[in-house]
Formats: sequence, C-alpha cells, structure tokens
Amino acid sequence: MSAETTTDWIKIVSSRLAADQVSVSEGERYRHSHDESDHSAVEPELVCFPETTEDVQAILETARQFKVPVTAFGAGSGLEGQAIPVQKGISLNFERMNQVLHFAPEDLLVTVQPGITRLTLNQRINRHGLQFPVDPGADATIGGMAATNASGTTAVRYGVMRDQILDMEVVLADGSVIHTGTKAKKSSSGYSVGGLFTGSEGTLGIITEITLKLHAIPEHTIAASCTFDTPRECAEAANSVLLMGIPVQRMEFVDAPSIKKVNEYGGYGLPEKHSLFFEFAGLTQSAIEDAQIAEELLIDQGAQNWHVAADAEERASIWKARHEMAYAYRHQPGVAVTGGDVCVPISKLPDLLEHGRELIETSGLEGGLLGHIGDGNFHTCIVYDPTSVEQKELAFGINDQLAFRAIELGGTCTGEHGVGLGKRKFQETEHGAALTLFKNMKQMLDPHNILNPGKIFE
Amino acid sequence: MSAETTTDWIKIVSSRLAADQVSVSEGERYRHSHDESDHSAVEPELVCFPETTEDVQAILETARQFKVPVTAFGAGSGLEGQAIPVQKGISLNFERMNQVLHFAPEDLLVTVQPGITRLTLNQRINRHGLQFPVDPGADATIGGMAATNASGTTAVRYGVMRDQILDMEVVLADGSVIHTGTKAKKSSSGYSVGGLFTGSEGTLGIITEITLKLHAIPEHTIAASCTFDTPRECAEAANSVLLMGIPVQRMEFVDAPSIKKVNEYGGYGLPEKHSLFFEFAGLTQSAIEDAQIAEELLIDQGAQNWHVAADAEERASIWKARHEMAYAYRHQPGVAVTGGDVCVPISKLPDLLEHGRELIETSGLEGGLLGHIGDGNFHTCIVYDPTSVEQKELAFGINDQLAFRAIELGGTCTGEHGVGLGKRKFQETEHGAALTLFKNMKQMLDPHNILNPGKIFE
Repeated sequence: MSAETTTDWIKIVSSRLAADQVSVSEGERYRHSHDESDHSAVEPELVCFPETTEDVQAILETARQFKVPVTAFGAGSGLEGQAIPVQKGISLNFERMNQVLHFAPEDLLVTVQPGITRLTLNQRINRHGLQFPVDPGADATIGGMAATNASGTTAVRYGVMRDQILDMEVVLADGSVIHTGTKAKKSSSGYSVGGLFTGSEGTLGIITEITLKLHAIPEHTIAASCTFDTPRECAEAANSVLLMGIPVQRMEFVDAPSIKKVNEYGGYGLPEKHSLFFEFAGLTQSAIEDAQIAEELLIDQGAQNWHVAADAEERASIWKARHEMAYAYRHQPGVAVTGGDVCVPISKLPDLLEHGRELIETSGLEGGLLGHIGDGNFHTCIVYDPTSVEQKELAFGINDQLAFRAIELGGTCTGEHGVGLGKRKFQETEHGAALTLFKNMKQMLDPHNILNPGKIFE
Repeated sequence: MSAETTTDWIKIVSSRLAADQVSVSEGERYRHSHDESDHSAVEPELVCFPETTEDVQAILETARQFKVPVTAFGAGSGLEGQAIPVQKGISLNFERMNQVLHFAPEDLLVTVQPGITRLTLNQRINRHGLQFPVDPGADATIGGMAATNASGTTAVRYGVMRDQILDMEVVLADGSVIHTGTKAKKSSSGYSVGGLFTGSEGTLGIITEITLKLHAIPEHTIAASCTFDTPRECAEAANSVLLMGIPVQRMEFVDAPSIKKVNEYGGYGLPEKHSLFFEFAGLTQSAIEDAQIAEELLIDQGAQNWHVAADAEERASIWKARHEMAYAYRHQPGVAVTGGDVCVPISKLPDLLEHGRELIETSGLEGGLLGHIGDGNFHTCIVYDPTSVEQKELAFGINDQLAFRAIELGGTCTGEHGVGLGKRKFQETEHGAALTLFKNMKQMLDPHNILNPGKIFE
C-alpha cells in the first residue's frame, strides 16, 4: 500500500470517529503490537477505540474500501498472537465498550460489551450470588475470551467459553450486524452460528455484544491436594474421580519440577512431588461428600500428602500458587519460555504426560507440565535462552512433537489458547478435509481478507 | 423432471448399491413419506439403505449429477416434518448404519453410526455404569437427534444434543468427507463447525458418524412432585430452585388439564392441579440434600401435595405419565393435535404460560401446556377436528401467537423440535439479518439445493 493511500484511509477513519477515538502515537502502536506470547511484535498503523457498534461498522466500511486489515484487541493477554496485527492496518481496541448492557439475575444471564474483563464482570455480579466462572488465569476481556474460546481451571465443571454464550452481536465484514442466538437457554431454530464465531479469533466477524450464562456461587467450597510418584498415576487417579461421577469444580495437575519452581518463586512450601489440586463445590453436604469420596478413592490408588485447605485464605493461596506456575518459569531474567497446549482423550493422558517429561529431560532444558487434567488438557513451560538458536529449536521441537502426538491420539494441538500464529502449522494435520470448508467460510464471510489476516491459516 | 430422467438416476443409484439396498415399493415409499407430525405426507421416489459412508458418497454423487433431492430418515419420530421428502427424490434411511463403532468407557465417549437409537445405545452402555442422557421421549436415532438438535427432560442438567457431540463425520454435498472435531473434551483449533451441522436438519451435509460424551449413571435418584394453584406459581417456584443452584436432573411442568387427561388415559391418579415433577440425582447424600432443600423452598412458596416416589417403580411410573401426556391428547379417535415448542428466558415464563392458557380457553378448544420448565421451554397440545377448517385455523393460530410472542420476549419459536416445515415462517422474525448468512451458508455448502430442500427456508 502506498504512503498516500495509507494517509487516505487513516484520514477517512479518523473523520468518522471523535478525535480521541483514534491514535497513531508510538505508545499506543507499541501497546497494540504484542500479546503475552513470544510471537514477534508488529505495530498497527492506526489504533481505534470504538464506542458503539456503529463505530465498528464505520471502521469496517473504510477498511473494506481500502482493503485495510482490522485486528481486534482486548486485554492483550492472549498466548498465541491473535491480537498482533501481523499485516498492520487497524488495531481495534474495545476498552471503551466495556459496559454491562443488561443484567438479568432472575434468568442467570448478562449481556455485556466485549471490552469488559472477567474480574470486573464478576465484581458486578458476585454480590447477587452469581458468578461467571470461566477462568483462564489472566484478567482477559470477555470479547477476547469469546474470540479465542478460552477456558481454564473451571472448564471441567462449567465447560468452555463456547458453552457459556447464548447470543452475540457480530459485525460482519460486509457491514451487516447479526445476532447469533436468542436469550432463551436453548433453541433449535435456524443455523447455529454462535459456536462458529466463538473461537474464530476475529477472522470471521467482530463481536460487539455477548450474552452469557451465569451460575450460582456454590454454597460451600473445599480445596484439597495430594501427590503421587509419577505423572501417570496422577492422570489415572484424576480419571477415576471423573468416572465416579464426582462433580469436581477444579482438578489440576502440576508436575514436581513446576511445584519446586513455584515454591522457590512464592515460598508456598508445597510437597515437591507430582501433584493434583482439587476444588469441590455445591450445597454444603454435597461438597463434603464429594471431597470425602474423592479422598477415599485417591488414597486407595496410592495418593500421599492428602491435604484439605483449612479456610478460604489457604484455599486462595493454593489457587494463587497454581496460577503463578507459568509465571514462576517466566520471571527468570534473561530467559524465554514457550508453552504448549495439547488436549487428548483422558485415557491417553498418562502416556502423553510421560512422553512430555521424557522429551523435556532428553532436551536438557528446564521445563514443566501442568494443566487441566479433568479435560485432558495440559501445558508445557519450556525455558530457553533466546540468544541460542539451538535451544530455541529444541524448546519449540518439544511442543511440536507433543502437538503432532496429541493429534495422532485423537486430540488437538490447542485445548484453549487458540490457533493464532503458533498453531497454524498443525491445522492441516488436525482438520484434513475440513480445512477446505474453513477456508471457504473465511472466503464467504471475508472475501477481501481484512479481518485479522494471517491468523488460523498460513 | 421427466420420467425418463427419473428412471436414469434410479437406475444409476441402484447400480451402485446392492439390490436389497434400494426400494421403490409402495410400502417403503409410504413409510418414508411422513413423521409423527401433522404435516402432509410426501412419498420419495426411491428409498436407499446405505451401509457405509462410501454408499452415502455414491448416492450423493448421482444426486448431484441429476439434481435429485436427498432427505435423511432416522426413526421417523420427528415433530416438524424434517424427514418428509417434500420435493420427492431419495429418502436415505440409516437403519443399517446402526453400530457402535468405538466405545471408550474410560474416556466417557462413544462413537456410533447415525442409525442407532438412543435406547439401544443405552442398553449397550448402561451395564458399564454409563448413560447417554438426552431424552426426547421417542426412541429416536442418534443421527436424527443430532440433525434436529433434540433435547427433552434432562437438558436442564446435561444440556442439549449439541452439547454432547465432540465429533461428527459428515458427507458434504460435493462428496467430501469431513470431521467436525476431535475426541478431546475441548479444542480451540480451527473453526468450530460441529454446532452448525447439529440442528441443520440434513440441509448442509449428511451425518455418517457421531462421537458422543457419556455420563456416569448417578448413584442415587429421587423423583418428586408437587402442585400449585396457577401456572405462574409453578414457573416462579421452578426458577427459585434453579437460582438456589440445586442441580436438578429433570424439572417438568404439566398444567391441570393435561394431568386430568393423562389420568383418564392411564389411570395414574395424580392430583389434578398445575404440577411440577422433579428428579434429583447424584451421590446419595447429595441427592437427598438437593431434594430436601428443594422441598423446603417449594413449601415456602405454597407448594401443595409434595410427594416423593417411594421406589424405582413409582419413579418410573411418574416419568411414564409425563411421557404419555402428549399421547393422551393424541390417542382420541377422530381428532388431530397440533403442538407448539416455544422457549424463553425463564423470567418470561410466568407471563407466557398464563397467555397460553388464556389463548386456549378463549378458543374453546381442548388443550394443555407442558414442558421443560427449567429450560424455559414448553409445548402446547391443542386438539382440533381435522375436518373443520375453522378449528384448525384456531389451533394453529394459538401456536403462531405464542411463537411470535416468545420471539418478542427474547426467545425462540422452537426450543427443541426444530424448524422443518412448521417453523419456517418465523425464521425472518427470529433471525433477522442472520437469515441472509444462513442462506449464504446453504448456498455455499449445497449450491444445487439437493440436501433436504424445502426445510428451514421457505
């Protein structure tokens, strides 16, 4: 694109918004050039701060006219580069579209704008005894979580982001505004397109409104942990809890090296063995019964160090430690960390976890495995020296091998982080003939490839 | 289509299958001309019985070449005419593709062919302590349930058909065979197209394989019922149970006229008042606690006749009565029955139920309201004399008014029966601009309109 044309479209977009809704400042362009992944930063040419759906339509109209890429930006907490405007153009920041539009506690529903973050939303609704439970760790925006189909520690109980969304308002590349559903809890009307836009990473349309299911805050919550000698035993024990039908609220695996790392980082004093962390929640007697039956089942299978958190404070400390695991690796000066995100049928986890530990140990690199064992989803944290090409290749090689192995085992290259840039290379292997359908859908919905170009497809 | 061309394609399809895999007999054409709805029967020109995915591909290849409509047929238990080949052509009966392909109890997963029915599947897996809980009443095929996004009495706990499907094999109109997902419990890879094919009623592709989530059979189950003076009180009380976070397994509403009707039909001796039916299930103490807390909450709100089923036999009798409600209306000689299927946010139910009763009483027709109150979904059963144009118009008018009112209230014209023929007229009102997207998707996936033409769109 020539400099003159660039000036043209920036002028036109700017003319259609208020002066403070656009920025070409170095600071804003830098802020919108990266996320929390290790993918290379690329700066947008223009940052826009839409305040209404009509603003989004106006921006897309000009983008369409000048074939300018438009990449949505939430909190910048993504882990696969989804918010990086790799082909430059416009970064669409939703921080001003952050309102609760309609809160209906009696329907366990809330309609929000995409820029609200999950913690802000919960602050607003918790006092009514309600929660929005999807918890990816970071204080991501609801729009970003919808666009990447985020999940996290509570998916084992409540499902993923896609399961929470009843309706979305989406602006399509052609400027039309659609709703993907209704506010009824279920529907068999029309084609169900909500699940398709969820997780499409802003490549099929721009989400401007989201209606979410809410859940009652459980009356009683119990956190507990235990250890095993091997990752395999952890996976097998976790699966026995699921097969028993115990409705765990969270069930997390952390390997021994990662426990050691977070102990060093935060002084948690956790037993430095392969560990499972649990949360049981519900009506009081139910939660107590769940925890007791799980304890018996786990002890039978050789669990050691069974420990129930004494109070809410200790419970919070356990989950703080769990959330700091990845950071414990990342905080070390002078190193980079790359993370995998495989998900497999649960019976395949023991093998895959063992394989993961072997790959890390053979590589000589520092690294750990941790994740959402009840979903069959785990992450790697592999530490490497970013100045060493050899180490970087080794680190990425481990994740690549795990991803291909996960697909072979009937699983996926990404359980929750999304495709973005890093998982594009696995799409053909994972999806086969369906990839042609995906490309046809992209072509139909975004014929000029202006919506987050360069993501999902190579 | 000229008679000669018809002969051509019937010959070609027949030549690609075994002799017993095709039929033009009067009996088979009649069997494939209707479902359980009151929509007019239309006979296919040819009935095919595919045994493999390759058979389906071969049939679609000829259908594409000669532009012959292809309509999938499961158990014929649909309620909106989805299986009726309204533009004739081929009826594709899946009764020979009825196998369990892969049962993985350790992963709570099963992969089946579309022609297996839900009761046959449950017979196969129940002995392993597992269940496939979606229960639309009829012994529908899993393929039919996927194609219409069926649900029923247990959706309040387990979700609808779309929530149970991890992966499908789908043959597209162009002959390609795709998989919509993997066997991992969650994924953020590629575009999520599984939810789109679910509920698309065979208009976007033909489902040839389905991987379903399974659930542990609860350790303990308690059935209970109570009555209220008005439908409004029933709806408000049901919602209070949900807001309390009590994980009911079933929660059904039946109005007083329908209770009276089923008592007459089956001699159940139920109190002839507006009623709620509950099932609580889980670990033993949890289920007992759930039932006790629900009882206290309901009595506080004026519930009468609280009754807990004494044993499994009485529990089965309650659900048998519930499933026979619609039949109690239909079995009367010389009458026809039309049924609505609206679903709204739960807070809108009291008004809509009241409105429904008023419409029925004003019409002078016999009729009842019953349904899945925990989902905001209820049905009408309206009895009319099929020889009276006036009565038929009155009966259909009630359902039309309820459907438009449900859409106004943020709900949907069909909570679970699907669009088929009867709900096409509401699509524009309910989906607005999204209807253009639906049509574009249909056009992209089925450019010659050979897949179940005449359904969903008018």
